[in-house]
Amino acid sequence: MAHIDLGVDETRFPGIAGLMRYRPETAKPLGELAEVLLRATHSLPAGERELIAAYVSGLNECTFCCASHSASAAMQLDQGMTLVDQVHLDLDTAPIPAKLRSLLRIAGAVQVDGRSVTTEMVANARAQGATDVEIHDTVLIAAAFSMYNRYVDGLGTFAPDGQDAYTDSARRIVEFGYRSTGRPEPTGSPAA
Amino acid sequence: MAHIDLGVDETRFPGIAGLMRYRPETAKPLGELAEVLLRATHSLPAGERELIAAYVSGLNECTFCCASHSASAAMQLDQGMTLVDQVHLDLDTAPIPAKLRSLLRIAGAVQVDGRSVTTEMVANARAQGATDVEIHDTVLIAAAFSMYNRYVDGLGTFAPDGQDAYTDSARRIVEFGYRSTGRPEPTGSPAA
Repeated sequence: MAHIDLGVDETRFPGIAGLMRYRPETAKPLGELAEVLLRATHSLPAGERELIAAYVSGLNECTFCCASHSASAAMQLDQGMTLVDQVHLDLDTAPIPAKLRSLLRIAGAVQVDGRSVTTEMVANARAQGATDVEIHDTVLIAAAFSMYNRYVDGLGTFAPDGQDAYTDSARRIVEFGYRSTGRPEPTGSPAA
Repeated sequence: MAHIDLGVDETRFPGIAGLMRYRPETAKPLGELAEVLLRATHSLPAGERELIAAYVSGLNECTFCCASHSASAAMQLDQGMTLVDQVHLDLDTAPIPAKLRSLLRIAGAVQVDGRSVTTEMVANARAQGATDVEIHDTVLIAAAFSMYNRYVDGLGTFAPDGQDAYTDSARRIVEFGYRSTGRPEPTGSPAA
Protein backbone atom coordinates (compact mmCIF):
# COMPACT_ATOMS: atom_id res chain seq x y z
CA MET A 1 0.00 0.00 0.00
CA ALA A 2 0.99 3.64 -0.32
CA HIS A 3 3.95 5.19 1.54
CA ILE A 4 1.57 7.65 3.25
CA ASP A 5 -1.91 7.20 4.71
CA LEU A 6 -4.28 8.37 1.97
CA GLY A 7 -7.33 7.99 4.19
CA VAL A 8 -9.13 5.77 1.67
CA ASP A 9 -9.53 2.07 0.97
CA GLU A 10 -6.88 1.76 -1.76
CA THR A 11 -8.49 -1.34 -3.24
CA ARG A 12 -11.48 0.89 -4.07
CA PHE A 13 -9.39 3.96 -4.99
CA PRO A 14 -6.17 2.53 -6.50
CA GLY A 15 -3.33 4.40 -8.21
CA ILE A 16 -3.91 8.09 -8.80
CA ALA A 17 -7.54 7.89 -7.64
CA GLY A 18 -6.52 7.69 -3.98
CA LEU A 19 -3.93 10.46 -4.42
CA MET A 20 -6.51 12.76 -6.00
CA ARG A 21 -8.89 12.25 -3.11
CA TYR A 22 -6.06 12.84 -0.63
CA ARG A 23 -5.01 16.20 -2.07
CA PRO A 24 -7.86 17.91 -3.98
CA GLU A 25 -5.81 21.13 -4.37
CA THR A 26 -3.35 19.37 -6.68
CA ALA A 27 -6.00 17.00 -8.11
CA LYS A 28 -7.73 19.95 -9.77
CA PRO A 29 -4.91 21.07 -12.12
CA LEU A 30 -3.77 17.45 -12.61
CA GLY A 31 -7.27 16.46 -13.75
CA GLU A 32 -7.63 19.55 -15.94
CA LEU A 33 -4.30 18.89 -17.63
CA ALA A 34 -5.31 15.31 -18.49
CA GLU A 35 -8.67 16.53 -19.74
CA VAL A 36 -7.17 19.12 -22.10
CA LEU A 37 -4.44 16.79 -23.37
CA LEU A 38 -6.41 13.57 -23.76
CA ARG A 39 -10.06 14.47 -24.25
CA ALA A 40 -10.55 18.05 -25.52
CA THR A 41 -11.48 18.54 -29.18
CA HIS A 42 -8.33 17.89 -31.22
CA SER A 43 -7.04 16.93 -34.64
CA LEU A 44 -5.54 13.79 -33.03
CA PRO A 45 -8.30 11.32 -32.06
CA ALA A 46 -8.66 10.73 -28.30
CA GLY A 47 -7.75 7.06 -28.78
CA GLU A 48 -4.39 8.04 -30.32
CA ARG A 49 -3.65 10.49 -27.51
CA GLU A 50 -4.49 7.78 -24.94
CA LEU A 51 -2.16 5.46 -26.85
CA ILE A 52 0.69 7.97 -26.44
CA ALA A 53 -0.07 8.10 -22.68
CA ALA A 54 -0.19 4.29 -22.48
CA TYR A 55 3.03 3.90 -24.49
CA VAL A 56 5.02 6.25 -22.22
CA SER A 57 3.53 4.61 -19.10
CA GLY A 58 4.63 1.24 -20.48
CA LEU A 59 8.19 2.49 -21.02
CA ASN A 60 8.15 3.77 -17.42
CA GLU A 61 6.82 0.37 -16.31
CA CYS A 62 4.05 2.07 -14.33
CA THR A 63 1.56 -0.77 -13.93
CA PHE A 64 -1.44 1.33 -12.92
CA CYS A 65 -1.09 4.09 -15.55
CA CYS A 66 -0.15 1.68 -18.34
CA ALA A 67 -3.14 -0.58 -17.71
CA SER A 68 -5.52 2.38 -17.27
CA HIS A 69 -4.55 4.24 -20.41
CA SER A 70 -4.17 1.07 -22.47
CA ALA A 71 -7.79 0.32 -21.57
CA SER A 72 -8.89 3.85 -22.52
CA ALA A 73 -6.97 3.69 -25.80
CA ALA A 74 -8.38 0.24 -26.66
CA MET A 75 -11.91 1.46 -25.98
CA GLN A 76 -11.51 4.35 -28.43
CA LEU A 77 -9.48 2.71 -31.23
CA ASP A 78 -11.14 0.51 -33.86
CA GLN A 79 -8.62 -2.30 -33.47
CA GLY A 80 -8.91 -2.31 -29.66
CA MET A 81 -6.46 -3.96 -27.28
CA THR A 82 -4.87 -6.04 -30.06
CA LEU A 83 -3.39 -2.87 -31.55
CA VAL A 84 -2.44 -1.41 -28.16
CA ASP A 85 -0.56 -4.61 -27.32
CA GLN A 86 1.24 -4.52 -30.67
CA VAL A 87 2.44 -0.97 -30.00
CA HIS A 88 3.71 -1.96 -26.55
CA LEU A 89 5.46 -5.00 -28.04
CA ASP A 90 7.17 -3.38 -31.01
CA LEU A 91 6.54 0.17 -32.19
CA ASP A 92 8.46 -0.41 -35.43
CA THR A 93 6.16 -3.18 -36.69
CA ALA A 94 2.80 -2.26 -35.11
CA PRO A 95 0.19 -1.65 -37.90
CA ILE A 96 -0.42 2.06 -37.23
CA PRO A 97 -0.38 5.12 -39.51
CA ALA A 98 3.09 6.61 -40.22
CA LYS A 99 2.17 9.91 -38.55
CA LEU A 100 1.17 8.22 -35.31
CA ARG A 101 4.36 6.12 -35.36
CA SER A 102 6.48 9.26 -35.79
CA LEU A 103 4.69 10.93 -32.87
CA LEU A 104 5.15 7.85 -30.67
CA ARG A 105 8.88 7.95 -31.47
CA ILE A 106 9.00 11.54 -30.21
CA ALA A 107 7.09 10.47 -27.09
CA GLY A 108 9.58 7.66 -26.50
CA ALA A 109 12.46 10.15 -26.70
CA VAL A 110 10.76 12.49 -24.21
CA GLN A 111 10.33 9.56 -21.80
CA VAL A 112 14.14 9.21 -21.71
CA ASP A 113 14.97 12.92 -21.55
CA GLY A 114 13.66 16.06 -23.24
CA ARG A 115 16.98 16.59 -24.96
CA SER A 116 16.66 13.22 -26.72
CA VAL A 117 14.12 14.72 -29.14
CA THR A 118 16.02 15.50 -32.35
CA THR A 119 15.26 17.88 -35.21
CA GLU A 120 15.16 14.78 -37.44
CA MET A 121 12.36 13.21 -35.35
CA VAL A 122 10.38 16.43 -35.57
CA ALA A 123 11.05 16.80 -39.31
CA ASN A 124 9.91 13.21 -39.84
CA ALA A 125 6.65 13.80 -37.94
CA ARG A 126 6.04 16.93 -39.99
CA ALA A 127 6.78 15.03 -43.23
CA GLN A 128 4.12 12.50 -42.20
CA GLY A 129 1.59 15.31 -41.83
CA ALA A 130 1.87 16.20 -38.12
CA THR A 131 1.00 19.79 -37.26
CA ASP A 132 2.90 21.95 -34.77
CA VAL A 133 0.10 21.58 -32.20
CA GLU A 134 0.17 17.79 -32.61
CA ILE A 135 3.95 17.79 -32.07
CA HIS A 136 3.57 20.13 -29.08
CA ASP A 137 0.85 18.04 -27.50
CA THR A 138 2.73 14.78 -28.09
CA VAL A 139 5.74 16.18 -26.22
CA LEU A 140 3.52 17.47 -23.42
CA ILE A 141 1.52 14.22 -23.11
CA ALA A 142 4.81 12.28 -22.86
CA ALA A 143 6.17 14.79 -20.35
CA ALA A 144 2.93 14.73 -18.33
CA PHE A 145 3.01 10.94 -18.08
CA SER A 146 6.62 11.16 -16.95
CA MET A 147 5.00 13.05 -14.06
CA TYR A 148 1.85 10.96 -13.46
CA ASN A 149 3.87 7.72 -13.56
CA ARG A 150 6.39 9.02 -11.00
CA TYR A 151 3.59 10.39 -8.80
CA VAL A 152 1.70 7.08 -8.74
CA ASP A 153 4.79 4.90 -8.21
CA GLY A 154 6.79 7.38 -6.09
CA LEU A 155 4.09 7.21 -3.43
CA GLY A 156 3.84 3.42 -3.76
CA THR A 157 0.13 3.30 -4.55
CA PHE A 158 -1.83 0.10 -5.06
CA ALA A 159 -2.35 -1.27 -8.60
CA PRO A 160 -5.10 -3.91 -9.04
CA ASP A 161 -4.28 -7.22 -10.75
CA GLY A 162 -6.01 -8.16 -13.98
CA GLN A 163 -7.70 -5.97 -16.56
CA ASP A 164 -11.29 -5.72 -15.25
CA ALA A 165 -10.76 -2.85 -12.80
CA TYR A 166 -9.02 -0.80 -15.49
CA THR A 167 -11.71 -1.46 -18.07
CA ASP A 168 -14.41 -0.31 -15.62
CA SER A 169 -12.41 2.80 -14.80
CA ALA A 170 -11.70 3.57 -18.48
CA ARG A 171 -15.42 3.31 -19.23
CA ARG A 172 -16.17 5.95 -16.57
CA ILE A 173 -13.39 8.21 -17.86
CA VAL A 174 -14.52 7.95 -21.49
CA GLU A 175 -18.00 8.92 -20.30
CA PHE A 176 -17.30 11.49 -17.58
CA GLY A 177 -13.74 12.70 -18.16
CA TYR A 178 -10.70 13.32 -16.00
CA ARG A 179 -11.91 16.38 -14.15
CA SER A 180 -14.20 14.16 -12.07
CA THR A 181 -11.37 11.86 -10.93
CA GLY A 182 -10.80 14.02 -7.85
CA ARG A 183 -13.90 12.24 -6.59
CA PRO A 184 -14.00 9.00 -8.57
CA GLU A 185 -16.90 6.66 -7.96
CA PRO A 186 -15.90 3.01 -8.07
CA THR A 187 -18.24 0.55 -9.74
CA GLY A 188 -21.32 -0.17 -7.68
CA SER A 189 -21.00 2.83 -5.38
CA PRO A 190 -23.78 5.40 -5.22
CA ALA A 191 -23.28 8.59 -7.25
CA ALA A 192 -21.78 11.51 -5.29
CA MET B 1 15.33 27.87 -31.20
CA ALA B 2 12.28 25.73 -30.55
CA HIS B 3 11.34 22.72 -32.71
CA ILE B 4 8.00 24.39 -33.55
CA ASP B 5 7.10 28.00 -34.34
CA LEU B 6 5.86 29.44 -31.03
CA GLY B 7 4.87 32.72 -32.64
CA VAL B 8 6.90 34.77 -30.15
CA ASP B 9 10.38 36.26 -29.91
CA GLU B 10 11.99 33.50 -27.83
CA THR B 11 14.72 35.79 -26.53
CA ARG B 12 11.92 37.74 -24.82
CA PHE B 13 9.84 34.65 -23.90
CA PRO B 14 12.42 31.90 -23.28
CA GLY B 15 11.86 28.39 -21.92
CA ILE B 16 8.37 27.65 -20.71
CA ALA B 17 7.24 31.29 -21.15
CA GLY B 18 6.99 30.91 -24.93
CA LEU B 19 5.27 27.52 -24.60
CA MET B 20 2.67 28.94 -22.25
CA ARG B 21 1.87 31.76 -24.64
CA TYR B 22 1.66 29.27 -27.53
CA ARG B 23 -0.89 26.98 -25.84
CA PRO B 24 -2.94 28.81 -23.18
CA GLU B 25 -5.27 25.80 -22.75
CA THR B 26 -2.43 23.74 -21.24
CA ALA B 27 -0.72 26.78 -19.68
CA LYS B 28 -3.66 27.20 -17.31
CA PRO B 29 -3.40 23.86 -15.44
CA LEU B 30 0.42 23.91 -15.69
CA GLY B 31 0.53 27.34 -14.03
CA GLU B 32 -2.03 26.35 -11.39
CA LEU B 33 -0.09 23.21 -10.50
CA ALA B 34 3.12 25.21 -9.99
CA GLU B 35 1.23 27.77 -7.94
CA VAL B 36 -0.27 25.17 -5.57
CA LEU B 37 2.97 23.20 -5.22
CA LEU B 38 5.48 26.04 -4.92
CA ARG B 39 3.66 29.09 -3.59
CA ALA B 40 0.42 28.19 -1.75
CA THR B 41 0.41 28.37 2.07
CA HIS B 42 2.35 25.35 3.30
CA SER B 43 4.32 23.96 6.24
CA LEU B 44 7.38 23.82 3.93
CA PRO B 45 8.67 27.34 3.18
CA ALA B 46 8.35 28.41 -0.48
CA GLY B 47 12.16 28.68 -0.72
CA GLU B 48 12.55 25.01 0.26
CA ARG B 49 9.90 23.92 -2.26
CA GLU B 50 11.67 25.96 -4.98
CA LEU B 51 14.92 24.27 -3.93
CA ILE B 52 13.33 20.84 -4.53
CA ALA B 53 12.25 22.05 -8.01
CA ALA B 54 15.73 23.43 -8.72
CA TYR B 55 17.44 20.26 -7.47
CA VAL B 56 15.39 17.97 -9.72
CA SER B 57 15.85 20.33 -12.69
CA GLY B 58 19.61 20.21 -12.05
CA LEU B 59 19.59 16.41 -12.06
CA ASN B 60 17.68 16.54 -15.36
CA GLU B 61 20.23 19.06 -16.67
CA CYS B 62 17.43 21.37 -17.79
CA THR B 63 19.27 24.69 -18.08
CA PHE B 64 16.22 26.95 -18.17
CA CYS B 65 14.26 25.34 -15.30
CA CYS B 66 17.35 24.85 -13.12
CA ALA B 67 18.46 28.48 -13.46
CA SER B 68 14.89 29.79 -13.00
CA HIS B 69 14.07 27.81 -9.86
CA SER B 70 17.56 28.21 -8.40
CA ALA B 71 17.01 31.97 -8.67
CA SER B 72 13.57 31.70 -7.03
CA ALA B 73 14.93 29.49 -4.25
CA ALA B 74 17.91 31.80 -3.63
CA MET B 75 15.59 34.80 -3.41
CA GLN B 76 13.50 33.13 -0.69
CA LEU B 77 16.18 31.37 1.39
CA ASP B 78 18.27 33.27 3.96
CA GLN B 79 21.57 31.89 2.67
CA GLY B 80 20.73 32.70 -0.97
CA MET B 81 22.53 31.29 -3.99
CA THR B 82 25.49 30.08 -1.92
CA LEU B 83 23.27 27.45 -0.31
CA VAL B 84 21.51 26.57 -3.58
CA ASP B 85 24.90 25.99 -5.23
CA GLN B 86 26.02 23.80 -2.32
CA VAL B 87 22.90 21.61 -2.72
CA HIS B 88 23.53 21.25 -6.45
CA LEU B 89 27.19 20.40 -5.79
CA ASP B 90 26.75 17.84 -3.00
CA LEU B 91 23.48 17.11 -1.23
CA ASP B 92 25.25 15.03 1.44
CA THR B 93 27.41 17.90 2.72
CA ALA B 94 25.24 20.97 2.00
CA PRO B 95 24.45 22.82 5.30
CA ILE B 96 20.66 22.26 5.30
CA PRO B 97 18.28 20.89 7.94
CA ALA B 98 18.05 17.08 8.16
CA LYS B 99 14.37 17.09 7.20
CA LEU B 100 15.01 19.04 4.01
CA ARG B 101 17.92 16.74 3.13
CA SER B 102 15.70 13.66 3.57
CA LEU B 103 13.02 15.21 1.33
CA LEU B 104 15.60 16.10 -1.33
CA ARG B 105 16.78 12.47 -1.27
CA ILE B 106 13.20 11.38 -2.01
CA ALA B 107 13.01 13.96 -4.81
CA GLY B 108 16.26 12.63 -6.28
CA ALA B 109 14.83 9.10 -6.30
CA VAL B 110 11.65 10.29 -8.04
CA GLN B 111 13.78 11.98 -10.72
CA VAL B 112 15.21 8.56 -11.61
CA ASP B 113 11.96 6.60 -11.42
CA GLY B 114 8.98 6.54 -9.06
CA ARG B 115 9.81 3.02 -7.97
CA SER B 116 13.22 4.17 -6.69
CA VAL B 117 11.55 5.72 -3.62
CA THR B 118 12.02 3.22 -0.77
CA THR B 119 10.12 2.75 2.49
CA GLU B 120 13.45 3.53 4.22
CA MET B 121 13.67 6.95 2.54
CA VAL B 122 10.11 7.72 3.60
CA ALA B 123 10.71 6.44 7.15
CA ASN B 124 13.83 8.60 7.37
CA ALA B 125 11.94 11.72 6.27
CA ARG B 126 9.25 10.98 8.82
CA ALA B 127 11.89 10.45 11.56
CA GLN B 128 13.25 13.91 10.71
CA GLY B 129 9.80 15.41 11.27
CA ALA B 130 8.32 15.39 7.73
CA THR B 131 4.53 15.14 7.58
CA ASP B 132 2.59 13.03 5.11
CA VAL B 133 1.59 16.12 3.12
CA GLU B 134 5.23 17.23 2.96
CA ILE B 135 6.25 13.78 1.68
CA HIS B 136 3.35 13.80 -0.81
CA ASP B 137 4.20 17.25 -2.10
CA THR B 138 7.91 16.47 -2.36
CA VAL B 139 7.11 13.48 -4.58
CA LEU B 140 4.69 15.53 -6.67
CA ILE B 141 7.09 18.50 -7.03
CA ALA B 142 9.82 16.11 -8.21
CA ALA B 143 7.38 14.37 -10.56
CA ALA B 144 6.07 17.71 -11.87
CA PHE B 145 9.59 18.91 -12.67
CA SER B 146 10.22 15.62 -14.45
CA MET B 147 7.41 16.94 -16.66
CA TYR B 148 8.30 20.66 -16.92
CA ASN B 149 11.95 19.81 -17.69
CA ARG B 150 10.97 17.39 -20.48
CA TYR B 151 8.43 19.88 -21.86
CA VAL B 152 10.95 22.74 -22.03
CA ASP B 153 13.79 20.63 -23.46
CA GLY B 154 11.65 18.26 -25.56
CA LEU B 155 10.49 21.23 -27.63
CA GLY B 156 14.01 22.65 -27.81
CA THR B 157 13.18 26.04 -26.33
CA PHE B 158 15.70 28.83 -25.90
CA ALA B 159 17.53 29.26 -22.56
CA PRO B 160 19.27 32.62 -21.96
CA ASP B 161 22.94 32.70 -20.93
CA GLY B 162 23.95 34.19 -17.60
CA GLN B 163 21.91 34.66 -14.44
CA ASP B 164 20.36 38.13 -14.95
CA ALA B 165 17.34 37.06 -17.03
CA TYR B 166 16.49 34.36 -14.48
CA THR B 167 16.82 36.72 -11.53
CA ASP B 168 14.46 39.21 -13.21
CA SER B 169 11.98 36.45 -13.96
CA ALA B 170 12.20 35.01 -10.42
CA ARG B 171 11.48 38.46 -8.99
CA ARG B 172 8.27 38.68 -11.05
CA ILE B 173 7.23 35.16 -10.02
CA VAL B 174 7.87 35.77 -6.31
CA GLU B 175 5.71 38.89 -6.63
CA PHE B 176 2.97 37.80 -9.04
CA GLY B 177 3.01 33.97 -9.02
CA TYR B 178 2.90 31.25 -11.62
CA ARG B 179 -0.69 31.67 -12.74
CA SER B 180 0.30 34.83 -14.61
CA THR B 181 3.07 33.11 -16.59
CA GLY B 182 0.66 32.33 -19.41
CA ARG B 183 1.16 35.98 -20.26
CA PRO B 184 4.55 36.86 -18.78
CA GLU B 185 5.78 40.40 -19.17
CA PRO B 186 9.52 40.61 -19.74
CA THR B 187 11.44 43.38 -18.03
CA GLY B 188 10.87 46.74 -19.63
CA SER B 189 7.80 45.75 -21.61
CA PRO B 190 4.52 47.60 -21.10
CA ALA B 191 1.94 45.85 -18.91
CA ALA B 192 -0.58 43.72 -20.82
